[in-house]
Amino acid sequence: MPIINKLIEIETNQGINIRNITPQIQDLITSTSIKNGQVLVFSRHTTTALAINENEIRLLEDVKVFLQKLAPESDKYLHNDLHLRDVPEDEPINAHSHLMAMMLSTSEVIPIVDGKLALGTWQSVLFFELDGPRKRTVFIQISGE
Amino acid sequence: MPIINKLIEIETNQGINIRNITPQIQDLITSTSIKNGQVLVFSRHTTTALAINENEIRLLEDVKVFLQKLAPESDKYLHNDLHLRDVPEDEPINAHSHLMAMMLSTSEVIPIVDGKLALGTWQSVLFFELDGPRKRTVFIQISGE
Amino acid sequence: MPIINKLIEIETNQGINIRNITPQIQDLITSTSIKNGQVLVFSRHTTTALAINENEIRLLEDVKVFLQKLAPESDKYLHNDLHLRDVPEDEPINAHSHLMAMMLSTSEVIPIVDGKLALGTWQSVLFFELDGPRKRTVFIQISGE
Repeated sequence: MPIINKLIEIETNQGINIRNITPQIQDLITSTSIKNGQVLVFSRHTTTALAINENEIRLLEDVKVFLQKLAPESDKYLHNDLHLRDVPEDEPINAHSHLMAMMLSTSEVIPIVDGKLALGTWQSVLFFELDGPRKRTVFIQISGE
Repeated sequence: MPIINKLIEIETNQGINIRNITPQIQDLITSTSIKNGQVLVFSRHTTTALAINENEIRLLEDVKVFLQKLAPESDKYLHNDLHLRDVPEDEPINAHSHLMAMMLSTSEVIPIVDGKLALGTWQSVLFFELDGPRKRTVFIQISGE
Repeated sequence: MPIINKLIEIETNQGINIRNITPQIQDLITSTSIKNGQVLVFSRHTTTALAINENEIRLLEDVKVFLQKLAPESDKYLHNDLHLRDVPEDEPINAHSHLMAMMLSTSEVIPIVDGKLALGTWQSVLFFELDGPRKRTVFIQISGE
């Protein structure tokens, strides 16, 4: 059974931003001969995350507001006391971004049927940048027959 | 290595409702010859979700109350301004349901050992309807040997 | 394609505690001949969970505080009315622990490349005890070639 590893590279913007990476994942699947199996989508950073939901622009704004209320940037966090940690001075102040990431997903597995992602009608694979801007990568592993 | 795809169909009730789909998943595994491997359980809707936890009726009520506090239906959401979106007039007002879904899971992978789901004693696979009533499907992919 | 099942055993402390189980998972992978594939990490309890994030001691304290605010132990929960349930008298009062577990992960799948977990630089696999002290197990399934 072939196992094919790929990377998606993403340059993100300031703060929280959400990207639909479904077309890139589908293109990678199409570039293989795998017709039946699954794709593992794996977020490779501690302040990025994944969710599978509707790619509707107003909903994505609602999600940002929701996450900002859930883990407010302005709260006190021990992780943000850089002077008490052994880190460079330009280390980002981003405890809230880590907490948001833990509430979303790091790994998602999606079935592949007839060479296509077997998503529901309104589902898209959404990549969350929670502490941009940065250069980020998403690991894609396609396996099956 | 065989890869077997199945669907579970579920008719749900009004609002939030939570179903234990463990017996249906186990029956599908038993109907195959796979004894060692894994099952991918994939929620196919943007207002349904999964969790693996205890199927205790009072706890399930606690989860509903918890989700309703986490993403209150009565909050203002941009996604709910249907007149600003290109959607039919009977589009559901359900931003809160999408947010709840993103806090739960879309994909879960569970090991299969000796033809059985290798769940812990108190674990069940729970399907969450977050915007019922609807006809829903859960994708089940069984793979192994 | 070989599929290898292992268990990690963990003795936990009082209340919430978070352990980095990355070295144990890597050791199990190294003990097999699998160089390319994936590992399924599966939490086997309804009051334990997983997350993949940074193993920074001050951040882990922030996560505890965050979870305790999200699902306060002092809130009223139906699951905690032991006299209304058919359970032993020493059943734990732990609805909050179940809720925290559902907000985190039960299953995570991580790619293996060249015999190593393909985690990002700052990522660790974190095991969350949410209702300790207990003896716990994490199921590890390694598959690939």
